[in-house]
Amino acid sequence: MKHTVYAIGIGPGHMDLMTLQAQKAILDCDAIVGYTVYIKQIQSMIQDKLIYENGMGNEIKRCEQSIKWALDGKKVAMVCSGDASLYGMAGLLEELVEKHDLTNQIEIEVIPGVSAAFSCSALLGAPIVEDFCTISLSDYMTPLETIFNRIQYAGKGDFTIALYNPRSKKRPHYLEQAIHILQKERDEHTPVGIVRQAYRQEQEIIRTTLNAIPYEKVDMFATMIIGNSKTRWINNKMVTSRGYDL
Amino acid sequence: MKHTVYAIGIGPGHMDLMTLQAQKAILDCDAIVGYTVYIKQIQSMIQDKLIYENGMGNEIKRCEQSIKWALDGKKVAMVCSGDASLYGMAGLLEELVEKHDLTNQIEIEVIPGVSAAFSCSALLGAPIVEDFCTISLSDYMTPLETIFNRIQYAGKGDFTIALYNPRSKKRPHYLEQAIHILQKERDEHTPVGIVRQAYRQEQEIIRTTLNAIPYEKVDMFATMIIGNSKTRWINNKMVTSRGYDL
Repeated sequence: MKHTVYAIGIGPGHMDLMTLQAQKAILDCDAIVGYTVYIKQIQSMIQDKLIYENGMGNEIKRCEQSIKWALDGKKVAMVCSGDASLYGMAGLLEELVEKHDLTNQIEIEVIPGVSAAFSCSALLGAPIVEDFCTISLSDYMTPLETIFNRIQYAGKGDFTIALYNPRSKKRPHYLEQAIHILQKERDEHTPVGIVRQAYRQEQEIIRTTLNAIPYEKVDMFATMIIGNSKTRWINNKMVTSRGYDL
Repeated sequence: MKHTVYAIGIGPGHMDLMTLQAQKAILDCDAIVGYTVYIKQIQSMIQDKLIYENGMGNEIKRCEQSIKWALDGKKVAMVCSGDASLYGMAGLLEELVEKHDLTNQIEIEVIPGVSAAFSCSALLGAPIVEDFCTISLSDYMTPLETIFNRIQYAGKGDFTIALYNPRSKKRPHYLEQAIHILQKERDEHTPVGIVRQAYRQEQEIIRTTLNAIPYEKVDMFATMIIGNSKTRWINNKMVTSRGYDL
């Protein structure tokens, strides 16, 4: 029988935006592994469990610990914010299982979750209504050239865009550069919504346009949604028209 | 005080993939509006409630009924499969509220959900790991030229692609045409995963490649995920490498 590691998407930060399946799997596991911030979010559910947590940059260590505990016979939950795969740990777990030649012994079961694009879209109104894409501005693993190419093609394809990791102290200028690329493809008055600390106490929503982004207010706790050619403001709601004949 | 219509994403079809917030909101509402298939999925939760349901093509009627009931003082839930906005009803509700000049009286509150891209990604392994896009092949409201342009740009940008509404009897050839466009941009051996009836009893998973898609098996109950240049099979799991140095 295979040992299972559950890769669990816990959603955007508020317990109520977790799925029932994620909740049940966490409660059912003996051992919980995760980035410190996410472990804190689910603290009330895991007080009786074995916990391995650490900070950013230790992703491989966390996945290795999950696999080790699973081989020891523990039921292990690797918790990820948002979805378990998108910018999460499910893929890395699969790669490590392969590297250690454990595909016959370890099964990674993925429990999907509500990714930031959707939680932020809900808070802004309904900007993500039809074809859209997500792009992370972190070049920790994806070359900056690839990222900027994607920005350009997303612009040409008139996709609504959800920008993850839009700006951090280490890369303060990427966002401005990305927006400049996009401005060549998209109207300067295109609605832009910025959500910081979604569904947390510190939540902040900034409503602006492509030519007026307050860059200094955007940080690593923010997700940005950039509308497409059919996105507009209906009062303070950012809405993309689906195209119904009303 | 404003009347609220809740636009609720109920996830892919299995009750356990609904968020707690969606469940609470449905239980709290007096009146439920939705496409017949989705109403059936949540039948056990709504037996004591007022229900308005009908089939495909009646989206405007359902939204109008939601608004009417809300004006009557009822707590109304408009249920959508997957997420409430993406290919869902949240945007149309906002547009109708504006059209009827009711923005001061009606508030649309959006409760996000797990969209098919994520539920199907979870079932296939971890193909949606970094920058990706969703494209619907239905040209009911989006011109076919726009859709095919998006396919091409998604290919050029090396996005992982989730194809919604990939094939129906009314448009049997769009999928093949879309894949031909993509084949000019992407390796013919690129992994492709097809999930039919995700998380339902009839669930079926097809693992294939870009040059070997069994078109006749793809229907309106399917979602397809097409890998990017870093997607490969690890045994029967479709996995996109995030790029960690292992």
